[in-house]
Amino acid sequence: MAVDPSIAADAEAAARRSEEAAESFFRGAPPLRERDRVAASVANFVVRRSAGGPAGGSRVICITSGGTTVPLEQRCVRYIDNFASGQRGAAATEYFLKAGYAVIFIYRRGSKQPYCRFLPEDSFLDLFELGEDSEIQVPQSHSTVVKAAISNYHKAIGEGLLLKLPFATIFEYLQLLQMVATSMNCLRHHGMFFLAAAVSDFYVPWESMAKHKIESAVGPLNMQLNQVPKMLFILRKNWAPSAFCVSFKLETDPNILLKKAEMALKKYGMDVVVANELASYKNVVVMVTSSGRTTVSRSSKEEDLEEQLTEHLMKMHTEHIT
Amino acid sequence: MAVDPSIAADAEAAARRSEEAAESFFRGAPPLRERDRVAASVANFVVRRSAGGPAGGSRVICITSGGTTVPLEQRCVRYIDNFASGQRGAAATEYFLKAGYAVIFIYRRGSKQPYCRFLPEDSFLDLFELGEDSEIQVPQSHSTVVKAAISNYHKAIGEGLLLKLPFATIFEYLQLLQMVATSMNCLRHHGMFFLAAAVSDFYVPWESMAKHKIESAVGPLNMQLNQVPKMLFILRKNWAPSAFCVSFKLETDPNILLKKAEMALKKYGMDVVVANELASYKNVVVMVTSSGRTTVSRSSKEEDLEEQLTEHLMKMHTEHIT
Repeated sequence: MAVDPSIAADAEAAARRSEEAAESFFRGAPPLRERDRVAASVANFVVRRSAGGPAGGSRVICITSGGTTVPLEQRCVRYIDNFASGQRGAAATEYFLKAGYAVIFIYRRGSKQPYCRFLPEDSFLDLFELGEDSEIQVPQSHSTVVKAAISNYHKAIGEGLLLKLPFATIFEYLQLLQMVATSMNCLRHHGMFFLAAAVSDFYVPWESMAKHKIESAVGPLNMQLNQVPKMLFILRKNWAPSAFCVSFKLETDPNILLKKAEMALKKYGMDVVVANELASYKNVVVMVTSSGRTTVSRSSKEEDLEEQLTEHLMKMHTEHIT
Repeated sequence: MAVDPSIAADAEAAARRSEEAAESFFRGAPPLRERDRVAASVANFVVRRSAGGPAGGSRVICITSGGTTVPLEQRCVRYIDNFASGQRGAAATEYFLKAGYAVIFIYRRGSKQPYCRFLPEDSFLDLFELGEDSEIQVPQSHSTVVKAAISNYHKAIGEGLLLKLPFATIFEYLQLLQMVATSMNCLRHHGMFFLAAAVSDFYVPWESMAKHKIESAVGPLNMQLNQVPKMLFILRKNWAPSAFCVSFKLETDPNILLKKAEMALKKYGMDVVVANELASYKNVVVMVTSSGRTTVSRSSKEEDLEEQLTEHLMKMHTEHIT
């Protein structure tokens, strides 16, 4: 099919603008701490599984999880944050590990962790008791789940199948994603992205940020925030073009959700966009692909929606590879 | 000393404005979940220790901890947050409990908890192993500290000396503080406040808040935030006038810190304002009182600054009672 040359030129110009915005974002971002050490651990993790490595040709997934913070001050006291417990990413990590994937888990500090999701929110001490000889005990009711968690976690770490990379700010998150994605490019179709992190749409560029804590004495606060460049587009186009890419769209208004998911699918070239509504995201999601929509829902509260969701996605990833 | 009547009238007008701002804040705030249940548990906890209760005349401290969030949308996806790990409040809780105080711990969900401060940030599973008979073990290096934590925590809860109340938003925080403070008023001088929570200075009134997630497609985001009413003033004046009140001032700029702490001391009628600088708050603070300044610093990294700080404050509280 012939493409109208003016449309093609428009698309090219839009692509160039995106790339320029991304470059400018990274140029202005405060550099990642211990960048070299982190980059080396990512490269090692990936190379083992690339075609020529010892675990050659095996599948690797990058799972992102939790919300990103947007600092409002350079010596950061205040920031903007997104709601995201990290439940979805932590659960997905467990299921992908179980299916034999190696997982790079890019997570927001303090968000839910794989195998720890069942924990009481604020006091892990409620789970433990001291026995008569002051040995550590877990009440019978929790014993099985706590022991399985300890054992599964140490297995994943021991076999080198889980690499955990923490972030807090939008600057850290996007630099880590770029690092991991470019590293995973060598895996080609065997690489997969499960981008469940809630990424801020707005940020304050580092150089225009207040150096000290913003003064509160002078009446209402006015702020202007810039748009964060759409990095999904750059990931697909430049960082890891052959990987299987799943992104997420969260809205509170069900009337615009599916339309926005479909727009994201086309605009960023995703393979799947998972549409979530805030009120029901634990019970039902819709997987939007170029060939249609599939609803995934759980039948009981004891079930993880992520078990079914990851199963669907792994099948699609297999098709993507073959 | 005769007070200039125009100054007195000014002060009265300012007080009235503060009270009106506070009333308007509470009127517009979304109501606390399970308000009646929480209020009853607070009242029970306090009444046991009031002059006529079974543990009559004993000391009660309200410790607030962690940052407050400011929702930007009613169905909240985005919010503004303050940096605050909750380390100070969690540590202080341990020392006040050890000294025999009953503690009402008002804490930000997910912030540091008493007796859990030593835990690895994101994976408590790193602390545990399974032994040969799949019994739960803690590596020798951590065994003493983990066992002490489990034992101290269960002791405090078992003896009814620790009441934990979680919050996330500025609306929840201030409603809880009002509830606890008015409840503690009956303890008079035996009550104490250790207000270490990092409270947002700005907020978006609930009724003027976006109902749905703010759209990201339409260029930069402009926001206007209102000032949060200064509740310390209301606490001192109306909620619990006889209690011993300690508040905290955090700044990143050392040049304005002590001046601002002294202003807060006078303006809100605090007994002590603890001045913290972001770069050094773990190592040194200055206690500002009407009779002067006292620097408290720790001599080694193994020490908690809070051990010394709470010791000073308990002595002052004793003087306040007698």
